[in-house]
Amino acid sequence: MAKVVVVGAGMMGTALCTPLADAGHEVRLVGTHLDGAWIAALKADRCHPKLGVPLPDGVTPFGFEEIRAAMTDVEVIAVGVSSAGVRWAAHVLAPFLRRDLPLIAVTKGLEESPPGALRVLPDVFSDELPATLRGEVAPAAIGGPCIAGEIARRVPTSVVFCGRDRATLDYLAVTCATPYYHVHVSTDLVGVEVCAALKNSYAMAVGIGAGVHERLGGAPGPVAHHNYEAAIFAQACLEMDLLVRACGGDPRQVPHLAGAGDLLVTTSGGRSSRLGRLLGLGLSFEDARAQMAGDTLESADTVRVVGGALPRLYASGRLAPGSLPLMEHLQEIIALGRPVDMPFGRFFGEPAAP
Amino acid sequence: MAKVVVVGAGMMGTALCTPLADAGHEVRLVGTHLDGAWIAALKADRCHPKLGVPLPDGVTPFGFEEIRAAMTDVEVIAVGVSSAGVRWAAHVLAPFLRRDLPLIAVTKGLEESPPGALRVLPDVFSDELPATLRGEVAPAAIGGPCIAGEIARRVPTSVVFCGRDRATLDYLAVTCATPYYHVHVSTDLVGVEVCAALKNSYAMAVGIGAGVHERLGGAPGPVAHHNYEAAIFAQACLEMDLLVRACGGDPRQVPHLAGAGDLLVTTSGGRSSRLGRLLGLGLSFEDARAQMAGDTLESADTVRVVGGALPRLYASGRLAPGSLPLMEHLQEIIALGRPVDMPFGRFFGEPAAP
Repeated sequence: MAKVVVVGAGMMGTALCTPLADAGHEVRLVGTHLDGAWIAALKADRCHPKLGVPLPDGVTPFGFEEIRAAMTDVEVIAVGVSSAGVRWAAHVLAPFLRRDLPLIAVTKGLEESPPGALRVLPDVFSDELPATLRGEVAPAAIGGPCIAGEIARRVPTSVVFCGRDRATLDYLAVTCATPYYHVHVSTDLVGVEVCAALKNSYAMAVGIGAGVHERLGGAPGPVAHHNYEAAIFAQACLEMDLLVRACGGDPRQVPHLAGAGDLLVTTSGGRSSRLGRLLGLGLSFEDARAQMAGDTLESADTVRVVGGALPRLYASGRLAPGSLPLMEHLQEIIALGRPVDMPFGRFFGEPAAP
Repeated sequence: MAKVVVVGAGMMGTALCTPLADAGHEVRLVGTHLDGAWIAALKADRCHPKLGVPLPDGVTPFGFEEIRAAMTDVEVIAVGVSSAGVRWAAHVLAPFLRRDLPLIAVTKGLEESPPGALRVLPDVFSDELPATLRGEVAPAAIGGPCIAGEIARRVPTSVVFCGRDRATLDYLAVTCATPYYHVHVSTDLVGVEVCAALKNSYAMAVGIGAGVHERLGGAPGPVAHHNYEAAIFAQACLEMDLLVRACGGDPRQVPHLAGAGDLLVTTSGGRSSRLGRLLGLGLSFEDARAQMAGDTLESADTVRVVGGALPRLYASGRLAPGSLPLMEHLQEIIALGRPVDMPFGRFFGEPAAP
């Protein structure tokens, strides 16, 4: 049994407490400075307003102002903040970190840094640490299918813990695994994290099919725009393969948990696919965003980063110019406000098609 | 404009007539000896009873007894028979075949031949031809997302034509492509066809998740058993990769149209996923099959072939023993009547996980 602190009481951070508690640990869920209402609700009746299932026994909620108490004798830290909160988390957690304290994050995203290169968030986190800690702490991260509401309900899944230190990963895997939360490990941090970040954008692209079908008067069912969606799904796999390679990761992540697995689950009804549906219905991104006011749109954020970096990724030789037509079109839709006009004719270019 | 004969008036053969007619060809749809009722309906009102959309202008239906007339000056043959009809098709078509007459099939399946090896159907077709034709005719095949009802309704898709003769593939691609039917080519006949055959079995496996969720009292929605389904999807990709390699194909087909793309589309509501749902609900295969009386269950047929061949594939060294736990479990369910007990703990074995 370990003392585990989960930082961030959003859906995913809170959901992660369930397997941790079921694995027998003492779990302390610490809200960020933005999570006050959720922590108050959890303290009142142990039910997270957005998850709708009770916190298991063995999990204690802490307000952000109580973080010091929560960190007493901590043995594992899990970070469940949003991608916008990664730098904040590094600053807040730095006083508690040390070489032998494993840290794992569920936060997904990419940044362009330096220009023409994509940086995964565990590395952004490390960059923000004080120099004395930077080489000491090797943040791990979680990829693979992880709908928070299902993890909190103990629906079986398989995930991959990635990081650069194999011993830490093996310890974390043993620590977090339960009979329904199956943990695999990979030292290919970049490959897993690039897939994990891209899946929101590409799930949005797949979601466009449902909107197009509806716009044309179709009803949901086995005959819809599933061929259209599947062609986009396959092109997404191809572009994830190219982007993983361009970032120095292993493309075998793509037909695996962090790639195709997480992409599939992300197409099954979350924010990313809802945004795609609105775009497929014919709304501009601006109008779609207005309809989804209050939702964080990671899918659009990642398109802005990756699509925005494409000219420099192409120019650097990391990617063949024009080799990512789907991401280029997503960038046109999100950043330039253009309507959907799926470039099937440019998909599956010869260089990459076997 | 070419004279194209499509043999087999099932859903897929009939649907394929739509892009062919739209590409400007004279299309002759010839029913098999089992398709009499469908051809009669098509001759009466040009509407296929199972497709529900009218045959485009430029398509003429022919009864099986009229095949000789249909073959007059034929320039391309497309074969849309069921997998059980492949040998029959070879015998029936042999009199009309010649080296410079391109032939392409939509039929999917695998046979164990010789023992311990899997053979794709275009090769089974070739084996059945008279010796004088065997080396002359290089059958091509179609992989990728192809729901027949959507092709007949001109829903955009991307497919891959595979075969061993690149010039024939390029000719067929130019002949069949339309603004909504995007054709790519691959000389990796084995890789594409192994994926195309396996997708039914693995889509059945993914479909089990919906049944399990329902059995536990869950309603459909964004929180269901999607993590469970996605973990199976990823394991299916891994096993397709291993099986494609074992058969001598290129594993890059897996995160592509014939693999992940066609697997995705097959999970969206056809017979294979319906069978999976019944198994997930707790029915034995026998009871599930009884509920689906009248349906051809390619998913179960392929499990019997591949699952049945596993001991010999393992023994031959083509696959590491135990490396296909999902297929092994499907074989237990289908051939031995065992209940579903998804072996997540054996998924993503170390040897193949990056």
